[in-house]
Formats: sequence, C-alpha cells, structure tokens
Amino acid sequence: MNYRIPRGTQDILPEQSRKWQFIEQKIHDLCNRYNYKEIRTPVFEQTELFARGVGDTTDIVQKEMYTFDDRGGRSLTLRPEGTASTVRSFVENKMHGWADQPVKLYYVGPMFRYERPQSGRMRQFVQFGVEAMGSADPAVDAEVIGLSMDFYRELGLSNLKLVVNSLGDKESRNNHRNALIEHFEPRISEFCADCQQRLEKNPLRILDCKQDNDHELMATAPSILDYLNEDSTDYFKLVQQYLADMDIRFEVDPTLVRGLDYYNNTAFEIMIDGEGFGAITTLCGGGRYNGLVEDIGGPTTPGIGFALSIERLLMALEVQEISLPIEEGLDAYLVTMGEQAKAVSPKLLHGLRSKGLAVDGDYIGKKMKAQMKAADRQKAEFVLLLGDDELAEDNIMVKEMATGEQKQVPLKEIAEWIISQR
Amino acid sequence: MNYRIPRGTQDILPEQSRKWQFIEQKIHDLCNRYNYKEIRTPVFEQTELFARGVGDTTDIVQKEMYTFDDRGGRSLTLRPEGTASTVRSFVENKMHGWADQPVKLYYVGPMFRYERPQSGRMRQFVQFGVEAMGSADPAVDAEVIGLSMDFYRELGLSNLKLVVNSLGDKESRNNHRNALIEHFEPRISEFCADCQQRLEKNPLRILDCKQDNDHELMATAPSILDYLNEDSTDYFKLVQQYLADMDIRFEVDPTLVRGLDYYNNTAFEIMIDGEGFGAITTLCGGGRYNGLVEDIGGPTTPGIGFALSIERLLMALEVQEISLPIEEGLDAYLVTMGEQAKAVSPKLLHGLRSKGLAVDGDYIGKKMKAQMKAADRQKAEFVLLLGDDELAEDNIMVKEMATGEQKQVPLKEIAEWIISQR
Repeated sequence: MNYRIPRGTQDILPEQSRKWQFIEQKIHDLCNRYNYKEIRTPVFEQTELFARGVGDTTDIVQKEMYTFDDRGGRSLTLRPEGTASTVRSFVENKMHGWADQPVKLYYVGPMFRYERPQSGRMRQFVQFGVEAMGSADPAVDAEVIGLSMDFYRELGLSNLKLVVNSLGDKESRNNHRNALIEHFEPRISEFCADCQQRLEKNPLRILDCKQDNDHELMATAPSILDYLNEDSTDYFKLVQQYLADMDIRFEVDPTLVRGLDYYNNTAFEIMIDGEGFGAITTLCGGGRYNGLVEDIGGPTTPGIGFALSIERLLMALEVQEISLPIEEGLDAYLVTMGEQAKAVSPKLLHGLRSKGLAVDGDYIGKKMKAQMKAADRQKAEFVLLLGDDELAEDNIMVKEMATGEQKQVPLKEIAEWIISQR
Repeated sequence: MNYRIPRGTQDILPEQSRKWQFIEQKIHDLCNRYNYKEIRTPVFEQTELFARGVGDTTDIVQKEMYTFDDRGGRSLTLRPEGTASTVRSFVENKMHGWADQPVKLYYVGPMFRYERPQSGRMRQFVQFGVEAMGSADPAVDAEVIGLSMDFYRELGLSNLKLVVNSLGDKESRNNHRNALIEHFEPRISEFCADCQQRLEKNPLRILDCKQDNDHELMATAPSILDYLNEDSTDYFKLVQQYLADMDIRFEVDPTLVRGLDYYNNTAFEIMIDGEGFGAITTLCGGGRYNGLVEDIGGPTTPGIGFALSIERLLMALEVQEISLPIEEGLDAYLVTMGEQAKAVSPKLLHGLRSKGLAVDGDYIGKKMKAQMKAADRQKAEFVLLLGDDELAEDNIMVKEMATGEQKQVPLKEIAEWIISQR
C-alpha cells in the first residue's frame, strides 16, 4: 500500500526548510526589536472558543473548521486562526494584571481550514501574527502596521500596497450598519443566500461578498467614513499621521472590510502588485478588536493585531525572484580509503562536530571518486583525505575545493586548522 | 463564559518561549553540523499510516490517537510520533533516489497522544527526532546516538545514562521470539490480558509490560543477546566500538525493548539519574528499523532514528538548575514628557528599530516615573528621555541604566550613538 499526504497539506523538504528557518529567525529578531514576545498555544482548542472568538456567522466557523470529539467526548477544533487562542490565553493567564501593558505577543504556527485547496491556500498553513492587548493608543496601531511592513521589506519584497480603513467605534458602526440595511434591504432578494442572512446579522460583511461583488448597489453603498463620529475620526487621523511620520506609504480604502466579526476602528491589509499571484494578492490582514477580550470572558481590553501566511510570503518571494541569504554547505567532507581509515571515521567526524564544524562522510561504502563527488554536491569547503598510509603517520590530507590546493596536516590538529581557515 | 485550555495541553508564555527558541536554535545548529536536514510534515496524516507505521498492537494506536473524519469523510489522525510521517514522506517523495544516501532528516514539532496527563506527559508535546534512511552501516547508529548525547551535553545536562541493546536481525529475532513463547506460554494465564495477546503477536513486548513487571518469569526470560546470530553480533560489536572511540559511555541492557514494533538491531535509550523526575527517567529513545520503509510502501531501506521530548528536556534542565544563556532586555526604552514628545515617539521608535535596535516606549499614558520603572522592568540598557524642551532643540537625553550616567545627544544621531556603545 502507498500512503499519501492528506489533501491540501504539504511536506516541507530540506531545500525549503532552510527558508522556513530563516524566516522564523527573522520573525524572532524583528519581534524582539519591537518588544513583542512569543506565545505558543495548543494546536486545538475547545470548539466553542472559535464559535465565539471568530464569530459563528463566518465561513470559517460555518464551513471550514476541523472539529472532532476527543476520547473523553469533548468537542475540539484545530485552530483556524491565532487570535482567539491568544486572547483565550490572555484571559486565562490574567495577563491584564501583568505589570507591562499593553501585553505585546506574537505567534508562528500551523492553522487549519477545510477549504478547496488551491495555489496559496492550503488546509494546513502557517501564520505569523502579533497581538497587542491593553492599549487604545493609535500609536500601537501604527506600530503593528509598521512591524508587518518591516517584515516584508526586510525580506526584500517590493511592490507592496498598504491599505487602511476605519470601521469606527460602536456608535459609528451602528449608524453605518443602519445605513447599510436601509441601502440593501429593498433589493436584498437580488443577493446571494449568504448576503440575505448577513443583512440582519452583520450587513458590513455584504461588502466583503465575493459572489455579489459586481452588484450595482455595492459601488453606491454608504461609506463607513461618512459615519465616523468625532472620536473615531480623530483616532483614524492619528493613525494616518503616525504612518506618514514613519515614512510608510498607504492608501485609505473605505471598502476594506475584514472577514472576521470582531474588528473595530483600524483595519488594514497589505497587498502585493504584479503578475503571478492569480487571485491571491492579499499578503497580510489585521485590525483593532476592542470588544474581543471581553467576549472571551476577560475585562474590557482594547486590542489590535495582524496575521499573515508564510506560504503566501514564500510565493511572493518566488514571484519576485528573491533568494534569501541562506548559508549552505559543509565545512568539510571526509573521504576515506582503506579499512583502517574507515574504522576511525566515526571518531574523527564526532571530534570535528564537537568543535562546531559541519562535516560528513560516507556511510554506504562508496569508492573514492564517488566520495569526492558527494563532497562536491554537499558544497564542502574542504575535503579531508584519509588513507591507511596517512593514518599510520597520524596525518591527513586537506584539499581546498575552491582552489584545489592540497596540504598535509597532523590528524590531531585538523579541527583547529579548519577553524583557522574560516 | 470562561474558555479553558484543553486538558493535557499548555500555553508557552513569553518567559518560557525564549527557552524554546534557544533549544530550537541549538537543534538547527547541531543538526547542521551532523548534516541532518529539517523536514516538516503535516500535523495530521491518514489514520492507516499510523496503524501500519507505528503498529496496530501498540498502546499508541489502540488507545491514544486523536482520530477524526474530515468534512470529506476521510479518517485523519493527529500524529502521535514523527517516524511514520517522515518515512511516508521519504517514500512519497522517492528520496531513495536522491543522490546523497543515506537521507539524513530531522524534525521538531507537536505530537499528540490521548493519555492521562501527568508531570512530563502532555497530550500535546513537542518531539525532536532524527531519521537516517539508506545505510546499514553501524557508523550511522553511532552517529545518531552521538548526536542525541551531544544535544543534551551541549545544553549542560549531566548524570546522563546511555543504555544500548541489540534486538538482532530477522533471524535472531525469530529465534528469540520462539524462546520467549516457550518461556512464557506454560504460565501465560498469570499475566495481564495485554500480555496474553502479546504472546503470539509480539512476545518481546511482554518484557516491556509495566503491569507484569515483577512476575518471576520476567527476570529469567531468555536474553536476546544469547540469540544474536553472527551478523547481528558483529554489528552490535561495531556500534559499541564506535561509541567507545567517540568517548561516549554506555551500558548494555539486554532487557531494553522499545515500545514500538518496528525496531531491529540497535535500540537505545538515554536516561537521567537523580531526584525530581518521579517515574520519568527516560529522556530519549531510538533504534534501527530496517523493515519500516518497506512496510510503508517503499523499497527495502535500512533506517535508524531517535525521538525525544522537549518538555522532558526542560524538566531535566530545571531539576539540574541549568539556566540557558538567553539574552534578555531592551537596548533602550523611550520615556517621553509632554505632548510634542509623545507625538514624535512612533517615528523615533520606528527609526531605531529599523536600525536593528530593540526599543520600546509607553502606550498607556504613564507618568514619567512609571515610565522609568517600566524601563527598569524591561531591562533596558539605556533610557532615552525626551521632553518638549529637548525636542525643540532636536536633542535627546540618554541615561545609562547600569551607571546612572546621563548625556545629551542630537536626536538625529541617537541610533548611531546607541550602536556605538554596544
């Protein structure tokens, strides 16, 4: 029998995994500079958390979750996104009482959505996200946006487009909501079944509908920006001011509505221009969620965050032909000739590795020529040639691959010799 | 409503996550030196893979798997261990055809077993494991064992005990198996129900039974070492010779039987001595599995690997009071006084972060004194004091926290000034 990888998932093989390591290291480094600290939550949570935290009218909760009962009969769900889990942890660990506020967290890990697999959309995918909870200062909005833009910029991506919007505070949203209902209600029967449901529950999300995208009422729908009250207007102005101060270019798009229910005030997306992406042009999305912590059972706590997919980032890097500065290759490859030499190679390799060198040798009885080829494929800087004759004199022959230069070195000094050449 | 983390799982909070990052970096670095490359497989696989790859008589498959149907009706299982997935990927990606053999892989990631949670035993836990497939050279056995021992040693653990055994090749195992059946059969009714089943299916695993541990037949059971044929004896001798050459101390324990069905020849465990571990003294287990690749649908391919739990490693570090050399603290904390100063802080912080500095400031309107306290808590090396007066003159005051020394620096030069002090 042949076993296949589950549909919509992928193996990350050695050639790719170095890129993942590089990107993760970049995330740790960048977040450290911004003073965001890593949190790791379980891969699954109680199902109700997502129904509440993501919103039970969303596609994610209604159609895309991996939900199952554990052997104790509890309903668990593989996390479809990272915010609900992070907020659950914030509440459960009483982080609102921590001395340093806001609590600035980030996560990198696998998320799961049962969708039709397509380019850039996997059933298991990895998100990097940050959440800052405990401050309603628009400077935090700008900081979070700045962090996401720096992330892409420092990896070398160009043609990024940052789009921002404000969904306003509760009052503004309510006024806008009423205007939307008034706008769509007379002709709601022309819209899809989902939108008809959305009209009462969350009419804002009608603007987000892919199916009814071209309906003429969409273009004329009332803009949230016309319904922002004074507080919300001032808040949005400050976010824009800070972004401008930070030399971050952006556009305001009043039709930008995030798919999740819990956003208010600032919403943003980072898109990428250019060929090769098909329908996928959004790399990152985020926004403010001042009601979410309370929804999950915590005290009223303002919050803001973003999430982005590493798979899409890798696609974007590929499309823009950016190669990450990844170091490859061995310090040395051991080529042995003869049984004595072969017999001492475990000890020799172990000694070199203990001194910090990346080295390897042959384990399948290759002839010398084939061993040399392996050294070449593995991009070894030096080849160490050990025959029974050299061994008898406690020497080893070193060949520098770049120059072809050879040199005899006492066996005991070989580690130090290689280190001295670096 | 309050949402709780699922039983048997944990949140890794900022204080701990730095340790995880450090350990992962150590794994990447160590495996790079040994020329093992990272592979990342999905969190779930088709259920049959584990039934076959782990063994359907094992506790893991019979009692501990998180198994569920996806929305398409396929039975999926959260991976309970990493070897089956890695071998599935080896076969599916035809790695036996890769130019460099053996294929040397490692993984770090979450695994899932539905067990009664207890100290050191979580339902979601993280394993680091390596697999070398494509060589039957005992030097690879020694290399894999050496890598695992180096891992613990380089993190500073002491009082480690390495135990090795040989389960022999197929012929040796069959002879031993028959001897075991002969030994236990007459009194098998005195053993637990599981063992009664094991007698025919896999009598070796009777030796591993925790329930019948004290039965008098256990101590007198035939030793595998008396049933090794010449090949297996020679193989085991070479593994031991190489370990001795590498200065790795070990004990041979003929009762060492790994819980999984697919091992042959070399088996090993790393235990830790000392108080504070309760029942948990095994840190790492591994061995050779020359039949597994074939079982999973690939060509006959020898393989060997190990797996270890990061959670148990962290417990061991704690018990031995080892603190990892983790760098903490900010380069600078910005303290602002006045509205002008506050208004420029997003730009200032962003500029410093863009230059590689780890900096933070206040986002909740703290008074100056409270901001200074925050700087202290965050272990900032410098405090940057910015008032409206300094700002008017394009200056900023810098205070070195260790010495209390203060100095005025032009605002434009502050990033370079901090960098020059490092």
